Amino acid sequence: MIHYGFWRSSAAYRTRIALNLKGVEAENRYIDLGKQEQDAGDYGAVNPQRLVPSLDDDGGIVNQSLAIMEYLEETHPEPPLLPADAPGRARVRALCLNIACEVHPILTARARGMLESVFGASAAAQREWYSYWVARGLTAFEARLANDPATGLYCHGDAPTMADVCMVPQLTNARTNECDLSGYPTMLRIEETCKALDAFRLAEPSNQPDHTG
Amino acid sequence: MIHYGFWRSSAAYRTRIALNLKGVEAENRYIDLGKQEQDAGDYGAVNPQRLVPSLDDDGGIVNQSLAIMEYLEETHPEPPLLPADAPGRARVRALCLNIACEVHPILTARARGMLESVFGASAAAQREWYSYWVARGLTAFEARLANDPATGLYCHGDAPTMADVCMVPQLTNARTNECDLSGYPTMLRIEETCKALDAFRLAEPSNQPDHTG
Repeated sequence: MIHYGFWRSSAAYRTRIALNLKGVEAENRYIDLGKQEQDAGDYGAVNPQRLVPSLDDDGGIVNQSLAIMEYLEETHPEPPLLPADAPGRARVRALCLNIACEVHPILTARARGMLESVFGASAAAQREWYSYWVARGLTAFEARLANDPATGLYCHGDAPTMADVCMVPQLTNARTNECDLSGYPTMLRIEETCKALDAFRLAEPSNQPDHTG
Repeated sequence: MIHYGFWRSSAAYRTRIALNLKGVEAENRYIDLGKQEQDAGDYGAVNPQRLVPSLDDDGGIVNQSLAIMEYLEETHPEPPLLPADAPGRARVRALCLNIACEVHPILTARARGMLESVFGASAAAQREWYSYWVARGLTAFEARLANDPATGLYCHGDAPTMADVCMVPQLTNARTNECDLSGYPTMLRIEETCKALDAFRLAEPSNQPDHTG
């Protein structure tokens, strides 16, 4: 198995955690988004969208971090990263999509680059854009967790799921962008629980061999 | 089962198609996004993100269109909207996420409203933004379909899957926004096949009771 990632990518951070939680060994290849290596010749064959992460499982290529997690769940069921019941699975998937659809895409380096090139957005306006979407998305995420009996030590029950795998990188990213996270006590409490696990800790951007600070 | 939607929402268009393909009857409730009805008092209890669609299955609420489709797949397996094999399921899910993460979120009315309020984006600049993301996303989607033997009459094989359910509304949305779609012949060919099915046709925005043109 080959994992294509980049230390700073939140989406690759997700799949690093998932591989670790599943105990799946993968050879890591690093695509430096800062040097636009994703746009170099042959990476398009791995990922036509020229994004990371990608997973190459013996020639079968899977793109998109959430699809990679579902694929790992189906091919390496233990330990499960989704609950067993359909309503619980729907809750976890909706939490993942809250981050993956409503927060992350609007805040990527490529989106912010477009804000600058099309609208001439100043650094201050870009920060306002970033803070707005983080606050909107994380407020809703916190509302789903707080006072819901399905929330446990982790986002869903007392074992990590895909929801935690999506939440932790988004918090890291928000912190890098100096967002105030004090309004999300349940998320912060769960993040601390996650970070006590090797699977999460070893996947952190600062612990990657390609990390350049 | 209660489906909360809005005729113009691409995400609700997806879940309308999925319900139709599954043959699941749902009572429809309409949340007029044009009148900000999603921000009115009690809808927050249904959907803390105040988005459509939402599904209420006898009191159990599912948010996020892709999570709703996965929930329907698990609770109403026939006809399947995912293939049986893990690599095929991963391919279909990645196609869905190409639309749901990389194209749709950046183009919503709420994102474009922010472009105007934060950056003072002109209508022309907003069109440039829209066209850029559509072209980027759909070019990659077309590349995944074209010349891949897994592509059949539909995006994956010869029966509709979640990938078609995500693709058709995005094409409709792009056409409404006057994007040139001539570069996506495989998608257009599959769209025509989909639109011959009642499940797709009856879910079209113009066929909804709350449609206001």
